Amino acid sequence: MVDHELTGAFAPVVTPFQADLTPDAPRFVSHCAWLLSHGVGLAPFGTNSEANSLGLAERMALLDLLVDNGLDTRRMLPGTGCCSLPETVTLTRHAVAHGCAGVLMLPPFFYKGISDDGLYDYYARVIEQVGDARLRLYLYHIPALSGVPITLPVIERLIRDFPRTVAGIKDSSGDWQNLSAMLDAFPGFGIFPASESLITRASARGAKGCISATVNINPEVIARLCREWADDTGAALQAQADAVRSIVQSFPMIPALKAVLASHRDDAAWAQVRAPLSRLSDEQHEQLHAQLAACGFTLPG
Amino acid sequence: MVDHELTGAFAPVVTPFQADLTPDAPRFVSHCAWLLSHGVGLAPFGTNSEANSLGLAERMALLDLLVDNGLDTRRMLPGTGCCSLPETVTLTRHAVAHGCAGVLMLPPFFYKGISDDGLYDYYARVIEQVGDARLRLYLYHIPALSGVPITLPVIERLIRDFPRTVAGIKDSSGDWQNLSAMLDAFPGFGIFPASESLITRASARGAKGCISATVNINPEVIARLCREWADDTGAALQAQADAVRSIVQSFPMIPALKAVLASHRDDAAWAQVRAPLSRLSDEQHEQLHAQLAACGFTLPG
Repeated sequence: MVDHELTGAFAPVVTPFQADLTPDAPRFVSHCAWLLSHGVGLAPFGTNSEANSLGLAERMALLDLLVDNGLDTRRMLPGTGCCSLPETVTLTRHAVAHGCAGVLMLPPFFYKGISDDGLYDYYARVIEQVGDARLRLYLYHIPALSGVPITLPVIERLIRDFPRTVAGIKDSSGDWQNLSAMLDAFPGFGIFPASESLITRASARGAKGCISATVNINPEVIARLCREWADDTGAALQAQADAVRSIVQSFPMIPALKAVLASHRDDAAWAQVRAPLSRLSDEQHEQLHAQLAACGFTLPG
Repeated sequence: MVDHELTGAFAPVVTPFQADLTPDAPRFVSHCAWLLSHGVGLAPFGTNSEANSLGLAERMALLDLLVDNGLDTRRMLPGTGCCSLPETVTLTRHAVAHGCAGVLMLPPFFYKGISDDGLYDYYARVIEQVGDARLRLYLYHIPALSGVPITLPVIERLIRDFPRTVAGIKDSSGDWQNLSAMLDAFPGFGIFPASESLITRASARGAKGCISATVNINPEVIARLCREWADDTGAALQAQADAVRSIVQSFPMIPALKAVLASHRDDAAWAQVRAPLSRLSDEQHEQLHAQLAACGFTLPG
């Protein structure tokens, strides 16, 4: 097992855009700094970051920006998995060179029906080509969007062959049976469910925290839940986190997160998404705002 | 409608790789020249080109290579659709600058459940940002791999708003009802099914040809079929093309095409695929070879 372990809550950081759809650097840096100040780590360039709508150069420039602004890369787990081997290697080298604690790596996601051998070969080649002992690789299992499941046999071979590098996995399957099977099969592995709704149940079985969309708007509660799930305060924190999550996830997630930031920061620019996504309708935005207000949600200052 | 029309058979050119998985430039150029010499056009960087396993720089370098070797860009329809708007714009500008007859553009394919408005907005922004009257855009509908269908209302809006630019579509749905609905809805539009098995039926309804994987190995028969489907020779050509197609598509398509080129050119290097794909097993390779031999298949010289 790896010698450095990530734990706690991580935000797949939403990426703000300007009206011309170019990334909005000042809002990006300040949102990341705000998240760190509330006790959560950063998983920039994830699904909820619209990372797959960003080009390679944009992704590297945004990570450079965080570093240039002095944000702590030891609390960063950037997404680096592209469809192509050379681009995944490029982004991963860049993140490792910046001292990031780890990288979160999608499988190559265009071709479907990929064999276990082919997927293993892909990840093995990425690791070999990056060729850096500092690399800590977290696999990213999100079959509903990638169409390429990371199966238990692939995980087992990767851990066996690269025990100091392959450090964990984010499980966005939403399938408790899958998460449970991984927790059983790989004790000590850095397993993170993709929703805070699973923290109490999964942490009791050895999960290390969560990497969850809603950490972008509810970082304090989720960070506390990751620490206190087994304490007297745990049940109330889990209920509080679940209430917010269940509201937000009943809307399209990325525009909903951005709508919440726009409303609560009184900053309409936050609502911008990049094509092909669409922002919430005015009606959806109002419903979301009303439902969150009714459950007592506030954005931390 | 556009003033320049592409017709006939196009090969989504398979991309040869060296043992280290870098593109094999000499084999790529010679395969492309061979295809052109057999009367078919080139659709490099398509699904069967493993284009989504290539990086942006690799794709541009390979197109530059074809141009540097004097291959006719007026017979080229390179794939330029990436997940991200800026990268799609970069590849499209590059192809247009080289004088390519058109580009074949996947929708952004990571995020699912994309609305018609979001998809329209994406394509409209690409066209506006490319900003070149020479652009001829062919949409690429392949929902089984992209997960993002290009619906009839989106096509209709794009044709209406960009009548000189949006020139056609490749339909890889494999769904005759969809192809038929497009042929009815958009007379004169550059509609290409993804299999030669549909040429007679679709051409009678106005399709312009086909863009098909197996053009890589059976260019002469398919090119003739595109010209002669309505002649006395049509039925025999359709049967001959169908026999080869039905064999090859019963194997994983990309490694099967490469295995045929490796066998018939006595050049084992052709069998190489890039991770995450896997080559055929020896047993599959032998079965494929035997079945093609039994139906009288030969690779043109």
